Amino acid sequence: MRKPPNNPYDISRLDLDDILGTINEEVRQRFGENRGEVADYIPALADVPRDRFGMALALLDGTVHEVGNARERFSIQSVSKVYTLTLALEAIGDALWKRVDREPSGDPFNSLIQLEHEKGIPRNPFMNAGAIVTADVVLSNYGDAEATLLEFMRARSGNPEVGADVELAKSERESGHRNVALANFIRSYGNLHNDVQDVLDFYFLQCSLRMDCVDLARSMQYLADGGRCGPSGQQVTSAEGATRINAMMMTAGTYDAAGDFAFHVGLPAKSGVSGAIVAVVPHVMGLCVWSPALDRKGNSLLGGYALHRFTRMTGLSVF
Amino acid sequence: MRKPPNNPYDISRLDLDDILGTINEEVRQRFGENRGEVADYIPALADVPRDRFGMALALLDGTVHEVGNARERFSIQSVSKVYTLTLALEAIGDALWKRVDREPSGDPFNSLIQLEHEKGIPRNPFMNAGAIVTADVVLSNYGDAEATLLEFMRARSGNPEVGADVELAKSERESGHRNVALANFIRSYGNLHNDVQDVLDFYFLQCSLRMDCVDLARSMQYLADGGRCGPSGQQVTSAEGATRINAMMMTAGTYDAAGDFAFHVGLPAKSGVSGAIVAVVPHVMGLCVWSPALDRKGNSLLGGYALHRFTRMTGLSVF
Amino acid sequence: MRKPPNNPYDISRLDLDDILGTINEEVRQRFGENRGEVADYIPALADVPRDRFGMALALLDGTVHEVGNARERFSIQSVSKVYTLTLALEAIGDALWKRVDREPSGDPFNSLIQLEHEKGIPRNPFMNAGAIVTADVVLSNYGDAEATLLEFMRARSGNPEVGADVELAKSERESGHRNVALANFIRSYGNLHNDVQDVLDFYFLQCSLRMDCVDLARSMQYLADGGRCGPSGQQVTSAEGATRINAMMMTAGTYDAAGDFAFHVGLPAKSGVSGAIVAVVPHVMGLCVWSPALDRKGNSLLGGYALHRFTRMTGLSVF
Amino acid sequence: MRKPPNNPYDISRLDLDDILGTINEEVRQRFGENRGEVADYIPALADVPRDRFGMALALLDGTVHEVGNARERFSIQSVSKVYTLTLALEAIGDALWKRVDREPSGDPFNSLIQLEHEKGIPRNPFMNAGAIVTADVVLSNYGDAEATLLEFMRARSGNPEVGADVELAKSERESGHRNVALANFIRSYGNLHNDVQDVLDFYFLQCSLRMDCVDLARSMQYLADGGRCGPSGQQVTSAEGATRINAMMMTAGTYDAAGDFAFHVGLPAKSGVSGAIVAVVPHVMGLCVWSPALDRKGNSLLGGYALHRFTRMTGLSVF
Repeated sequence: MRKPPNNPYDISRLDLDDILGTINEEVRQRFGENRGEVADYIPALADVPRDRFGMALALLDGTVHEVGNARERFSIQSVSKVYTLTLALEAIGDALWKRVDREPSGDPFNSLIQLEHEKGIPRNPFMNAGAIVTADVVLSNYGDAEATLLEFMRARSGNPEVGADVELAKSERESGHRNVALANFIRSYGNLHNDVQDVLDFYFLQCSLRMDCVDLARSMQYLADGGRCGPSGQQVTSAEGATRINAMMMTAGTYDAAGDFAFHVGLPAKSGVSGAIVAVVPHVMGLCVWSPALDRKGNSLLGGYALHRFTRMTGLSVF
Repeated sequence: MRKPPNNPYDISRLDLDDILGTINEEVRQRFGENRGEVADYIPALADVPRDRFGMALALLDGTVHEVGNARERFSIQSVSKVYTLTLALEAIGDALWKRVDREPSGDPFNSLIQLEHEKGIPRNPFMNAGAIVTADVVLSNYGDAEATLLEFMRARSGNPEVGADVELAKSERESGHRNVALANFIRSYGNLHNDVQDVLDFYFLQCSLRMDCVDLARSMQYLADGGRCGPSGQQVTSAEGATRINAMMMTAGTYDAAGDFAFHVGLPAKSGVSGAIVAVVPHVMGLCVWSPALDRKGNSLLGGYALHRFTRMTGLSVF
Repeated sequence: MRKPPNNPYDISRLDLDDILGTINEEVRQRFGENRGEVADYIPALADVPRDRFGMALALLDGTVHEVGNARERFSIQSVSKVYTLTLALEAIGDALWKRVDREPSGDPFNSLIQLEHEKGIPRNPFMNAGAIVTADVVLSNYGDAEATLLEFMRARSGNPEVGADVELAKSERESGHRNVALANFIRSYGNLHNDVQDVLDFYFLQCSLRMDCVDLARSMQYLADGGRCGPSGQQVTSAEGATRINAMMMTAGTYDAAGDFAFHVGLPAKSGVSGAIVAVVPHVMGLCVWSPALDRKGNSLLGGYALHRFTRMTGLSVF
Repeated sequence: MRKPPNNPYDISRLDLDDILGTINEEVRQRFGENRGEVADYIPALADVPRDRFGMALALLDGTVHEVGNARERFSIQSVSKVYTLTLALEAIGDALWKRVDREPSGDPFNSLIQLEHEKGIPRNPFMNAGAIVTADVVLSNYGDAEATLLEFMRARSGNPEVGADVELAKSERESGHRNVALANFIRSYGNLHNDVQDVLDFYFLQCSLRMDCVDLARSMQYLADGGRCGPSGQQVTSAEGATRINAMMMTAGTYDAAGDFAFHVGLPAKSGVSGAIVAVVPHVMGLCVWSPALDRKGNSLLGGYALHRFTRMTGLSVF
């Protein structure tokens, strides 16, 4: 009989700072390749230099490891969808699944045909359509949705200075014709209950929240720790709730690259167009990487590479 | 500081026979609900009684736990796709990904439009289209593909009596117009290199292999153990290879229910239309459940329920 | 040698009033069958009684034949797309075809996927998406688009009292989430040049114009007469322009029933959700029928029947 | 009051040979531009020189006018679908429409998604899928389908030498993976009643028939003359039947260019991949043009140009 495998959750065997240092070097050597594109549909995103890389790990005991530009702020964009999903599930529970499905999206091409085919029910809460419905649920169920979200993010990250970038939200609001289209299309099926403008205002606000890698790594910790938030000490959701949100991040968190991400990284993760990717090692840590240049599917090119290297160097892939 | 979590891989804390017994009872109480449908497109599948349930676990140390009809044979159908994928990857490595993608399929509706849109490149190796391309690769790279596959399955399961059901394969061949359509469509894009008939003959043969839950649980063990097969002692694929196949099972192994399966079960898994589902707890065990009645997405209704209960009772979900 | 066919354009052989009378009787006998549905997304449409039928013919010599409720006004809805198309073509000619295609739409299901697939270029000017682009062109090229359109319709119909129903336009504007979605989606591809709100305001205004069957039959006459409008004596478009607009009505004028309409009627025609259908017998007359109950593709059920009977009784199908 | 228009059916005003001569010159001047591509998926098509153009008109009195390579034979390919449709309608009448729809196809991209979406009912009898179902109907309802079709084509054209090119049919059969896919896909929905191989054999045979422009112009004459075939004196179908087939050619006869064809030509027409296009001027004549180079939608580039010029020079567009 062979001996049982070591506990991979025993990260005391790993020198995390050394690993982060190695990854940081490898990533920076790749800046010169100049691959990937910075999102440029609004100036606030287009103006971010591409030679940026930060990474932070928040362990369950509160320890944080970080490297590179881990204290530089950016708008969290679609990463916010993890948190509004958590709020929506806490408010209405499984009733959410009557209004949003939880399957992978297939491909970008699929988004609108799918909405039409499935009568206004978005495929999952991490596609824009699904996040707009989720935002509508939050609006309906919390007295002051903006204040609730701000408070939630400050408590998750332990950083009372987390705030929205009102100018950015306004700028996205004005150029976001496609999201306006999605919201109105969903509304035409009766799957938005609030005024379309109000829903979009809240949606663009959540995307505009400014945080850094350390803030976000800490803000993912509750999903690694059975729903218990380290910075605040609160039980944010149940252990089952955390498991389920992690599952959805695995199958739908990285736009249409979920298969590839599972293949190369193997962690629940959620990406945003600003180049941020948050991830979870269940039972072990929350993570965040940030690097602005994106691959053709909209995920941070070097952020994805960093997470790949991280799971391969640590053996912390869930697979 | 909170103490680190226990090692969830330390299954010595679990009474697996007791857990299987409980699941078996719960499942059998649900036989009367008479939900789900047995696949009926060929008599060999339609004739299987629906009040069957078997489940087996194969631990890395060789121990097997089983319950119910775990020694009753059935055709493995799409479960075979895991093994032909392994053979194809061993033969040509990453070159496979030029001919098959590795993203979730979206929805059933998507299958043909996707093939047309992506010029004959199937979305992943677990959809029928992708498995047909995988079968073509196996045919091209092994002298006697059928003998190779039989030998592979006998070695993985440790059961020298594993064999094909030639009558079943013939029956599926004759009624499988949709698979014939898929194969010819892929061929029209040049993405099959062998004769269409030969590819389909091999494809229907792999689906017709007859095995039981114990055979299949053992046959999954190499994916739990970094590529090392317990029954044969062989290193079937690398640790990286096993990780990657597990990742693909998570995002695409259960037809169009991968999101739901991750949500409710949280293990890499592959289902077949005969009611079998194989799964992997990385570092811990291979599993197989079998119950013929299917949900509307084609996965075993009570098999899925059993796996859900199993991960919730044991805490062995990867999330 | 057989003698050449009679001139089917010689309508002196037909007793048009008798034919209209017969059709009117046949249609009214079918009111009781109670098939079809009145559009009900806004009260102004839902409140129209379904037992209404009017029909009018406007010959090239100025003669009008009419029957039933041919003098009852209704909002012309999508029938207006014929006229805005004429205005857009007069303004920018073939440059329009860089922004709208001129192929049939396939099916309803196709509308958004097609827009996405073809990067914001609507399939034809008679789908809502195409009409929104056409409205944008009119807005860009005429100083006061609303006044221009009103003047155009008054001149075409010879009725100075044609006007918009501002309340109706407002009501449609508020409930028209799907059209708002379409407009924003097109805008996201850069294929609207004016403010989305302005384009939609004009679009809903054109749909709200109130006219009766006699007005509309006269307003189609220029398309039967090589571009020359009888009521005003103006050459509205060239003979080639009239031919082309007729061709587009044949292949795309009746939503997704163009094939069926060609099959059963065989005339260039354009329908609206209020139950109106305008049609053209080239070289002979403009027509209009109106009956509010719609078939499942959105065309007037009894209006289509009346046109079918008309071409069969007169031999005036173009086929 | 203006005088009624002249009878456009009075073609005595036209010098048809002069018009054909002018068109022939214009077309031949365009050979040098070398635009368009000859179909090259089989050698028999690829080997045809592109500098060929023929055109023939068959008037109702039996007169034929011709120009260029009007006596050079080619395989009629999809032009044959007009004739098998006529045979199928004569055999089972409107029951055909339960198995094939009669709407335009939308776009090429649509073909398979549409079949899947509409459960194996092809969109119209002129798409390959619809023609395969039509071929199945002919096979089911005529004792010897091949002999029936040959006899039909010889009688329609008045040419007893019309025959199939067995080598060509075999060659297409072997390379026609996409049509094999379509047939099996339709069969999987139960919408083929004969053996798939038999249906495809008949389908490829009908495509391989060898005829010239004069043969085909004569073979279209029954559709111009209320169903009465001039060469044979037979009433092939009713006047209503001829009207309906003409209507379907208008909305679906030129693949995905029906809108453009109505716009530029304005006649019921059916094209084939060999570069042939047949057309009908109702009440006046059958036509055929042939020139092998195809536009990107698969219609003869110069054939379409010739028909455009013909309707503009003669005023014989139906619009």
